[in-house]
Amino acid sequence: MKAYIVGVGMTKFEKPETRDWSYPDMVREAASAALDDAGVRYEQVEQVPVGHCFQPSTAGQRAVYELGLTGVPVYNVDNNCATGSTALMLARQFVEGGAADCVLAVGFEKMARGALGGSSRGGDLAASPVARHYGIMAAAHGFEASPPTAQIFGNAAREHMDRYGTTPAQLAAVGAKNHRHSVNNPYAQFQDAYTVEEVLASRTVHRPLTKLQCSPTSDGAAAAVVVSERFADRHGLGARAVEIAAQAMTTDTAASFASGACIDAVGAPMSRAAAQRVYESAGVGPGDLDVIELHDCFSINELLTYEALGLCGEGESGKLVESGATTYGGRWVVNPSGGLISKGHPLGATGIAQVAELTWQLRGEAGARQVTGARTALAHNIGLGGAAVVTLLRR
Amino acid sequence: MKAYIVGVGMTKFEKPETRDWSYPDMVREAASAALDDAGVRYEQVEQVPVGHCFQPSTAGQRAVYELGLTGVPVYNVDNNCATGSTALMLARQFVEGGAADCVLAVGFEKMARGALGGSSRGGDLAASPVARHYGIMAAAHGFEASPPTAQIFGNAAREHMDRYGTTPAQLAAVGAKNHRHSVNNPYAQFQDAYTVEEVLASRTVHRPLTKLQCSPTSDGAAAAVVVSERFADRHGLGARAVEIAAQAMTTDTAASFASGACIDAVGAPMSRAAAQRVYESAGVGPGDLDVIELHDCFSINELLTYEALGLCGEGESGKLVESGATTYGGRWVVNPSGGLISKGHPLGATGIAQVAELTWQLRGEAGARQVTGARTALAHNIGLGGAAVVTLLRR
Repeated sequence: MKAYIVGVGMTKFEKPETRDWSYPDMVREAASAALDDAGVRYEQVEQVPVGHCFQPSTAGQRAVYELGLTGVPVYNVDNNCATGSTALMLARQFVEGGAADCVLAVGFEKMARGALGGSSRGGDLAASPVARHYGIMAAAHGFEASPPTAQIFGNAAREHMDRYGTTPAQLAAVGAKNHRHSVNNPYAQFQDAYTVEEVLASRTVHRPLTKLQCSPTSDGAAAAVVVSERFADRHGLGARAVEIAAQAMTTDTAASFASGACIDAVGAPMSRAAAQRVYESAGVGPGDLDVIELHDCFSINELLTYEALGLCGEGESGKLVESGATTYGGRWVVNPSGGLISKGHPLGATGIAQVAELTWQLRGEAGARQVTGARTALAHNIGLGGAAVVTLLRR
Repeated sequence: MKAYIVGVGMTKFEKPETRDWSYPDMVREAASAALDDAGVRYEQVEQVPVGHCFQPSTAGQRAVYELGLTGVPVYNVDNNCATGSTALMLARQFVEGGAADCVLAVGFEKMARGALGGSSRGGDLAASPVARHYGIMAAAHGFEASPPTAQIFGNAAREHMDRYGTTPAQLAAVGAKNHRHSVNNPYAQFQDAYTVEEVLASRTVHRPLTKLQCSPTSDGAAAAVVVSERFADRHGLGARAVEIAAQAMTTDTAASFASGACIDAVGAPMSRAAAQRVYESAGVGPGDLDVIELHDCFSINELLTYEALGLCGEGESGKLVESGATTYGGRWVVNPSGGLISKGHPLGATGIAQVAELTWQLRGEAGARQVTGARTALAHNIGLGGAAVVTLLRR
């Protein structure tokens, strides 16, 4: 049975300690918005997968108990930066499998300043679970132990430059595009446009990545109401429903490590495999997509993901972004929300926030960010360690 | 489509720092045993939910990558002490919903000495996520903030004594029974019998609970292979398959807090609701059960669970254990494995280890612990914060 998204909601993403809120506060805000958007009451929700990385064990219960004490199953899930889409993947499977007709998927993160090893962008992640875990894998594959995430991705960027002639300006073009997109997104942590020159001139985090090419540390929550076709029909929710046409999660395979390349170690093979599965399952190709939200934790990862999703050939992603093909007026609009770089990246929330943006786009409700005539959308969310989730949405 | 358990495995549960092993070591040991038991290769596994509470975000991947790099979805899940059965609940739903024919559910925990706030049983849990979370709820309901878990359950025990005349000797009888059962369990952390008098004479952790009535801090892992009927048929696994006849997860409802009673705050209403749902769904009652593994984190919780499962009426559980009705030769055998009190309690592993024991019992493979003619079994796993999972197994 097909699963449909009938309501989405999110908080504005914020720099930690900007707002005086608890994680239950932010979940109540996002989940209430999603339920209101759907016209569904919390009492109709049958299961609740909740994604978060840095909160206590049953933080999911603590948060959703504020919406109601209905006794329904709550699952706390965690897959690093792919946590939000992991919660969504459970919601879809519960609905498609007939276990529930109405599921609320929630993702949130309250990241202490320094939760990722420093209060500034791209800080040393050595103390984080992500890096600790990555360190184990990295050590096994010849990297230094526990490198900061910015270093891992910086090395992948240098590799891409060496192999394909990608330029610092092409990498910076990703940052400039996504910051420009976010100007129209009231939910984005940053809403300021920068030129490629300004992006290049911002502080170097790990060569060649500069600050305006790196996602910041963020607080925030997002939620989505996922229902069966019969639930949508019964409650008259079909008109605004978005179909989850296909979805796949992949984890590392031998391909992630075989080459010893940083590009592979940061998950490009996982992304490629997940996209392929989704395209096959839905009978579409990259040419059929109108709008894409993808995991630009660092500018290089947006370029790697263009290639993994098949938007261009291997090594051609630098030229692709420079050509304008991935912004308004181009072949696709990639990260109309501003992406992780400018919208922010509260780990547990990111994967669901991507789908919130795409739902608004597919319904024609994205305001000044609207991608004209968007009918087919793809979300890509990845976590080191690792998991990649690709979701195809259709209306 | 019905889901069947066709293979189970676990490590011996150990006091932390007894064995020189990493969490991937313990997962490989338990999961390999489960796969061998089933006659299934890891390459046949389609999805892997992994439960753990104290390890990094993608520790599940880190652990199962040792079994193979097949790229299948891995979900890290966490529901405090009910984490293991939460992973199992996902496995069952994936199979019943048709998303997969073969799922490996894994649970593990490597608990640093002091992971629960002290190296000794019943230490102060104030620093643990469990207690931090419970503290929030407790404060809202008139308890002191962040009480140690032993104090919470000790208070529930005193409440039961005040209300129903339950005696310290009846509470101690739970500890004596479960320690006695574990003498025959090579997987148990402790394998020593104690008399009721010895249990009563052991160190007081929180009045009236003494050390031999409290689950210890433990390391360990457990795994189960859950498959569809068609997978079992195709691979000739039917002969040793155990049916998951029904399963339910409940979270807190208003009933958990309405009375202000400790007995309710520790989850007895969640257990009762989950059991009721399972009985209705499978068309059985407590009288149909032969063998039970239940969540005796403290002796009082075994008594509360007798009542929640309907083995006796309200307030009659002290007399029930004293009567011998819940040990070999009685109406039911409860916790033949030794239970959490004597087998140990590595949080993420516990729920799956309970089901491993019941699978062996239903197959007649439990050796000196065998419950004669066991055909219907029930597992009960609960976490503060909270979630209760009840699973009915049949052969």
